[in-house]
Amino acid sequence: MAFKFQINNDVTFNHDTKLLKKAAQLTPKLTEKVVHPVMLTKVVPNKSKLDQVGMEKVADVSDLDQMKFQRDGKVVLDFGRHYVGKFKLNIRHVGSPQDAPLALRIKFAEVPAELTYESADYDGWLSKSWIQEEVFHIDQLPVELTLPRRYAFRYVELTVIDTSPKWSAVFSQPEVTAVSSADERTLTPIKLTDPDLQKIYDVSVDTLHDCMQEVFEDGPKRDRRLWLGDLRLQALANYATFGNNDLVKRCLYLFGGMTAQDGRIVANVFTSADPQPDDTFLLDYSLFFISTLYDYEQHTHDQTALTDLLPVAQKQMDYALQYIDQNGVFHEDEDYPVFVDWSNEFDKTTSGEAIIIYVLKQFMTLLKETQQETQKYAAVLQKMVTYSLNELFDPAKNLFVSGDQAEVNVSSQVWMTLADVMPAKQAHDVMATAEKELFPIKGIATPYMYHHVAESLLKSGLKQDGIRLLKSYWGKMIDLGADTYWEAFEPENPDYSPYDNPIVSSYCHAWGCTPAYLIKKYLLN
Amino acid sequence: MAFKFQINNDVTFNHDTKLLKKAAQLTPKLTEKVVHPVMLTKVVPNKSKLDQVGMEKVADVSDLDQMKFQRDGKVVLDFGRHYVGKFKLNIRHVGSPQDAPLALRIKFAEVPAELTYESADYDGWLSKSWIQEEVFHIDQLPVELTLPRRYAFRYVELTVIDTSPKWSAVFSQPEVTAVSSADERTLTPIKLTDPDLQKIYDVSVDTLHDCMQEVFEDGPKRDRRLWLGDLRLQALANYATFGNNDLVKRCLYLFGGMTAQDGRIVANVFTSADPQPDDTFLLDYSLFFISTLYDYEQHTHDQTALTDLLPVAQKQMDYALQYIDQNGVFHEDEDYPVFVDWSNEFDKTTSGEAIIIYVLKQFMTLLKETQQETQKYAAVLQKMVTYSLNELFDPAKNLFVSGDQAEVNVSSQVWMTLADVMPAKQAHDVMATAEKELFPIKGIATPYMYHHVAESLLKSGLKQDGIRLLKSYWGKMIDLGADTYWEAFEPENPDYSPYDNPIVSSYCHAWGCTPAYLIKKYLLN
Repeated sequence: MAFKFQINNDVTFNHDTKLLKKAAQLTPKLTEKVVHPVMLTKVVPNKSKLDQVGMEKVADVSDLDQMKFQRDGKVVLDFGRHYVGKFKLNIRHVGSPQDAPLALRIKFAEVPAELTYESADYDGWLSKSWIQEEVFHIDQLPVELTLPRRYAFRYVELTVIDTSPKWSAVFSQPEVTAVSSADERTLTPIKLTDPDLQKIYDVSVDTLHDCMQEVFEDGPKRDRRLWLGDLRLQALANYATFGNNDLVKRCLYLFGGMTAQDGRIVANVFTSADPQPDDTFLLDYSLFFISTLYDYEQHTHDQTALTDLLPVAQKQMDYALQYIDQNGVFHEDEDYPVFVDWSNEFDKTTSGEAIIIYVLKQFMTLLKETQQETQKYAAVLQKMVTYSLNELFDPAKNLFVSGDQAEVNVSSQVWMTLADVMPAKQAHDVMATAEKELFPIKGIATPYMYHHVAESLLKSGLKQDGIRLLKSYWGKMIDLGADTYWEAFEPENPDYSPYDNPIVSSYCHAWGCTPAYLIKKYLLN
Repeated sequence: MAFKFQINNDVTFNHDTKLLKKAAQLTPKLTEKVVHPVMLTKVVPNKSKLDQVGMEKVADVSDLDQMKFQRDGKVVLDFGRHYVGKFKLNIRHVGSPQDAPLALRIKFAEVPAELTYESADYDGWLSKSWIQEEVFHIDQLPVELTLPRRYAFRYVELTVIDTSPKWSAVFSQPEVTAVSSADERTLTPIKLTDPDLQKIYDVSVDTLHDCMQEVFEDGPKRDRRLWLGDLRLQALANYATFGNNDLVKRCLYLFGGMTAQDGRIVANVFTSADPQPDDTFLLDYSLFFISTLYDYEQHTHDQTALTDLLPVAQKQMDYALQYIDQNGVFHEDEDYPVFVDWSNEFDKTTSGEAIIIYVLKQFMTLLKETQQETQKYAAVLQKMVTYSLNELFDPAKNLFVSGDQAEVNVSSQVWMTLADVMPAKQAHDVMATAEKELFPIKGIATPYMYHHVAESLLKSGLKQDGIRLLKSYWGKMIDLGADTYWEAFEPENPDYSPYDNPIVSSYCHAWGCTPAYLIKKYLLN
């Protein structure tokens, strides 16, 4: 994820060297794979909308080193799928001696639409520095130009800003060294009878693959960091696919090793240099440390990690329970908000109540596994469930309501279902009602929220509705050309970008990777 | 220089390894000097013309590391004078953790006017790649950013394209390692009573200093290469100042070592990698190889160099004499033109005739010094001088005429005077007439042509007219803010740029450096 800014740069952090050392020791060696473009292309003109931009083949890759480029000459290399890695290229010149530097712009794009925007025109609030574009002045040709930075892309646009009228630039041997900590050899292919679902599954595996680097990154184009909300979903998809459990463990230790002095875990950490916590705090994200540890333990039964990390987990729960009153009612603190989704157009109180219930149950299981007392937490849980069923559920509507205005929204039904607040039969009925009354969903732009909707449908037995949602959301992205799932997508508004411009949007984003998990857990058996 | 394009990329060149090896052995070790900015400035707004743009101090350099920069923040470092060298800078960040790369544009400018133009708006014929501007994306701060390329500049503009809303960039310790093959310790300062002439002298020394690198470059911003026309003038200024005779010798061996298969020397060579001749041929530039060798021998009496290079010199003269008919008349070949000046708005026939006479005399002196026969050349010289005095001189006008239309122009008088075609008294009268009839000069934009005008005035005894020209041309550039002399300047049109934009003009250009030579030779005794 990546969204609103919190600035808390006066917060002091603990650095638990024992935990951080374990995290460092778990740093994966990335697999490297050299790949070459599959064709030379150009952007199809007169189509500037995200869902209408296409690429057109202009030549075979083998033609590249016969092509001469002067001022404003350009070509787009299509690598055939999304990659994360480093790019290099040989450049020579033909004609008279090189009487001026070569000025060359190289732009990396995950989707064709990015190539239709001029970087200088972008004026959104998100940093322009994320635009994947470099300009080089090369005084001496020939050169093997190896770019030092890592990029996320399918397309590489080479634009000659200028040579001189006396000579031309010629490009050859473009290649990418693609990197990932996902090892394809550990992936057991699955074969689905429904080709659409198969494609949805495959793209989710690619998305996860490209986000798996030295940590589970949220997006390899942007922000390239470890967010707890994304980590929880990536870990679930990882168990269903690559099974790199040590990478999950490393990420848990990173979060566990850098808590604020009040004990809270931050929403995300930076890991490109020495690990450093961000200064953003979200109540649900802090709690998902527990959830991620719970899922990890379900898959690994790693007692050492549990012993190391349960005390940190407990602090998250104890901190969160400050916001639960004696009647089991959750009161949100604006300095420690629940995220639930990017959208702030719906009331999140009931979702927050449900998320705390969801995590509290997992936490109590972990306590029991370590033979610890759960009574205190059981009492709170009981109150919260009772309050939820008695006060938040509206029997007339057969739906949960949220907030002072008794707002009915999708998220409340979804999280109460995921939290197992109701018996299975009732959950089925609630979700069926939600599907009938509240679908198609409007105003939700994140695969993160759509994941929870899809899982609540599948979990409550509404299998066909779940499949329909997988196809109408993740499948729709594929219809629009997605090679990997996007950070943001509103099916009812396919051009929507949270940043008003695709040039800084992330089109390979971790929280979209969950179909592999959902399909394997709910649809394969 | 640098001007019109010739493309002769089918020409084959000789590479005389013996001569090129000597050139390589003479490669100078550059002196390095670390310099720091003298103040922080900004461009004075609402003044976009070259002669009206100024800088205004905004802070002391010591304030820099207290200044915070976010999107679009900028500051201009003023280094106090023109330098050629490499730039480095420390950058850190303050505020929240660095959640995005720093995108930074660094622009180097010789004159303030360059900072008022957007690079993207330049669309002239000269390569955009000369624009001294780089964009960096820095993923990890703090950093010591050392730019690998060399720049020519007085001003360095730092513009933050973006940080993020959560943090700011802070700059510190900007410095330049200035380079030159001119050793200031070899310079004997001169003291002139006229402060204007003193300033004109000093700026010419600075201009020469910054153009003296591994060869005598034409311009350290652009084109950074060795042109014969510039070399001849730089060598004269060098004898009067730094006295780095080995650098002249190196340049002579570079030209001598790479002739075309027909024997001609090219107008310029590239030396940034393995030496390579350009494919441009100009008759007067080829001949000035002889002239430069002659001047070198006058100052050094280097017999080995003379023995090595006279055969190459002879080929230039023999090739040029093909264009002299039996009556001593020069016929220009459009494939091997005489340059004389950038302007093609005047007839160059008489100038060409005079230039050949000028060089022929020097060549015959060199032949005599090596005890070689000059008879054949003396016969041609005699015919050329006779033809010039009888047919090209118009006694009624007391001026030389040029071409079929008997055009009267400044250049003809200048070169006939420099070639000593007339007795001294007559030359004085011709130049006095020229000064009266043809001044102020119009339509000439190069210090190269102005140098020859000034020398012809001083040589013919018109000392006050010579001084007046020094002040009205080179002195005017200083009035307009020049720290070093410019590639192009028309006093009657101070905004003139041969490229329609100052952003690619060279404001430290070798052929402007001759006042040091002229003042020392004609005004100091």
